[in-house]
Amino acid sequence: MKDNKVIHELITNGHLKYIPHISVDCVILGYHANQLNVLLNKWKDVEVWSLPGGYVERNESVDTAAHRVLWERTGVDKLFLQQFYTFGDPDRINMNRRLNRLPVLFQEGGKELHNWMAERFISIGYYALVEYSKVSPRPDHLSVESRWWDIHDLPALIFDHDRIISHALHAVRLQLKYQPVGLSLLPEKFTLPELQKLYETILSRKLDRRNFQKKMLSLGILRRLPERKTIGPHRSPFLYSFDKRKYNQALKEGYGFA
Amino acid sequence: MKDNKVIHELITNGHLKYIPHISVDCVILGYHANQLNVLLNKWKDVEVWSLPGGYVERNESVDTAAHRVLWERTGVDKLFLQQFYTFGDPDRINMNRRLNRLPVLFQEGGKELHNWMAERFISIGYYALVEYSKVSPRPDHLSVESRWWDIHDLPALIFDHDRIISHALHAVRLQLKYQPVGLSLLPEKFTLPELQKLYETILSRKLDRRNFQKKMLSLGILRRLPERKTIGPHRSPFLYSFDKRKYNQALKEGYGFA
Repeated sequence: MKDNKVIHELITNGHLKYIPHISVDCVILGYHANQLNVLLNKWKDVEVWSLPGGYVERNESVDTAAHRVLWERTGVDKLFLQQFYTFGDPDRINMNRRLNRLPVLFQEGGKELHNWMAERFISIGYYALVEYSKVSPRPDHLSVESRWWDIHDLPALIFDHDRIISHALHAVRLQLKYQPVGLSLLPEKFTLPELQKLYETILSRKLDRRNFQKKMLSLGILRRLPERKTIGPHRSPFLYSFDKRKYNQALKEGYGFA
Repeated sequence: MKDNKVIHELITNGHLKYIPHISVDCVILGYHANQLNVLLNKWKDVEVWSLPGGYVERNESVDTAAHRVLWERTGVDKLFLQQFYTFGDPDRINMNRRLNRLPVLFQEGGKELHNWMAERFISIGYYALVEYSKVSPRPDHLSVESRWWDIHDLPALIFDHDRIISHALHAVRLQLKYQPVGLSLLPEKFTLPELQKLYETILSRKLDRRNFQKKMLSLGILRRLPERKTIGPHRSPFLYSFDKRKYNQALKEGYGFA
């Protein structure tokens, strides 16, 4: 009942509070045990899932809106959200037509509503790459469930959200080429094979071990520790940690060109 | 007179044709003779310049809008525009206040107008990197002049356009780390020092010659030609051209990680 009131208020007066035609969508990628997941919300009443997304308040920056929306819809906060692309095709909303039933926000008694939310929206995409186990999502009043999905096994998604996820993955994969990754995803001390597994999981493909190690060591962001990890009688690979000063510098400026 | 009509129509009825609160801005970077320039329009009546920008039609994709706006405002078309960032601070428009006088679109008889164009706008930024001499800008009905400016010597700019230019430069500089650059900027055959000059101009700093050459040759996008360039009696560097298949592949996927 309370939930229905919230939804009714959003439908009737939301346009006074929020900027029309603009939304934000968050692609939260969770890494765990060599698997990459994405955080999705299940809409009420229908078998369709969506990225955590929402609107921008009239006096709010879009970055602040992205953080607020993520928190309101999933209970997740304090993530480093990076803007990666703005989705502005006029037929984004029509991708609803692929669904058999519209979510409650867009229909009443089986009929499509023509409220401000059913208009064309241009959506600003944000992503974050996080350690899966540090994030415990909970659904909001528009959703019945908020949970992780394997990126290789996604459910039916609303609008163009499958395309937004593909774009986010492309952005994260490009980022591997010019910025370090892993500080919040790996334990404090890790082996080069563990780091390689992280890269392979993000890239969804195998990498050559020797080339990977040569490349990573040449970047100057790793510090080799005096300890080794003991895996078996003949396997004790070196442990490494990130050189945080150099890691943060590379995060800011990208790897040095020459 | 005709120009004033166009402006009046835009002020009174523009909101019917265009999506409110959304704009596009184009940062066109021109490379020539080891100098990097940016294309700017001078507003009528006031000593202030702006990026070529404008609005998105109600049924137009934002990418199409960026190309149309660039064409209408400067006569430049067929550029490869890349979206790089969306500027969504609520106080973007207030940066007008830094100016002594508002451009004609935002004032009448010295007074600030409160039309749809004076509201908050979220602007989607696009950039292109082009050979300066291939582009001949001409001003539109809102501007008295459209011309190139050295990025190290910019005039007073409207709104947050100085910030948009900084962001575009940052995006181009990052791009050097994961994608090739130069196909449309250098002659068909070029020397490694010429390629290095291009990189140094974009990065605004000197690079180490040996590291640069080693790095560039390792990327696999260059083809060494049998000919050499004759510069002086003891200087005849090799000529190179891009391997277009590998260049285009790297443009699409970024350089291989390992």
